[in-house]
Amino acid sequence: MSIRKKNKGQLIVLSGPSGVGKSTVIAELLGMRPNIYFSISYTTRLPRVGEANGVNYHFVCHDEFERMIEQDELLEYAQYVGNYYGTSMKMIEEKLDAGIDVLLDIEVQGAAKVRRRCAEAVLIFIIPPSIEELSRRLYNRNTESEEVILGRLKKAREEYQEIPNYDYLVINEKISVAAGEISAILTAEACRTRNRKHLVKI
Amino acid sequence: MSIRKKNKGQLIVLSGPSGVGKSTVIAELLGMRPNIYFSISYTTRLPRVGEANGVNYHFVCHDEFERMIEQDELLEYAQYVGNYYGTSMKMIEEKLDAGIDVLLDIEVQGAAKVRRRCAEAVLIFIIPPSIEELSRRLYNRNTESEEVILGRLKKAREEYQEIPNYDYLVINEKISVAAGEISAILTAEACRTRNRKHLVKI
Repeated sequence: MSIRKKNKGQLIVLSGPSGVGKSTVIAELLGMRPNIYFSISYTTRLPRVGEANGVNYHFVCHDEFERMIEQDELLEYAQYVGNYYGTSMKMIEEKLDAGIDVLLDIEVQGAAKVRRRCAEAVLIFIIPPSIEELSRRLYNRNTESEEVILGRLKKAREEYQEIPNYDYLVINEKISVAAGEISAILTAEACRTRNRKHLVKI
Repeated sequence: MSIRKKNKGQLIVLSGPSGVGKSTVIAELLGMRPNIYFSISYTTRLPRVGEANGVNYHFVCHDEFERMIEQDELLEYAQYVGNYYGTSMKMIEEKLDAGIDVLLDIEVQGAAKVRRRCAEAVLIFIIPPSIEELSRRLYNRNTESEEVILGRLKKAREEYQEIPNYDYLVINEKISVAAGEISAILTAEACRTRNRKHLVKI
């Protein structure tokens, strides 16, 4: 038995409620594992203060987003608090084929769609230590009205119902621990027997 | 939703052909994660040079081993190259209930029995970079006759057929990498959604 097959990259989906600190955890993770390709989503929502096009998101208008939907250019897309969010398919397939891991930061509807299209995708949900803590973080961010924050907390409770559909659950109490756990998950997934069969040489 | 349940320890099974360097990898792993309980097997085989009772194995006679089988004191046992090898149940259950991970170094028949009795057990198979490399390691060990070594290589090829029953495959090319991968697997398994449901607090 001597099977030789090029390792494909892993598709990693990270979801979690707004305010949990996903972006900070992702930045820490990319520092630990620089060979992850972090897929930048397309969105129709407006940039927040400090956000830049092509860095946080590709910011596009509603018409352009609907054109991408019609031409089947998206791996997944979803509407969230009134805006479209989606992932372009092309770049992701290229990276995975080249053996590079691809990380998607997408919400629960999008994650469910990715799971249906790609059974081997690794789904990770990240939560705060408690909803009270999430509430504190959202108020401290000081960028949104009370009404928007209450909407996000309600949304968080709904999203929590989807946790059983995720493979892994990471609690963001300390950023370095959360990022370290995600890094360990990626290492472990690469060790799965099904991903290493080609390394068995008798 | 607020579920509080004490985390149980994880049962980890490590198998691999004789000569792959399991003991060295385990020693490195225990250095990285001192709170793993390494279960010492019972065996009827004679100690090798440098092996001590209660350290490498509990060395017992044939009659004592068969008494343990009859009194159902073993989680698993198997015969391997003419000797019995088995794992005592009592200590393992105590450790797992106390939230401590338990590591078993057992061969493929025993691993299959553990899987049947404990579906959540994490099964890891460790291989050398190639069978040629295994052959070199066995000859370099210089403790066994050519006939015994050839028997071990034949056995290794048989054991490889069981790899698909294992969750993870680790290649022992470099000890620190192999031990690091096993450590990452343990971290990742602890992050599995089913093992963390009790931490979800809404």
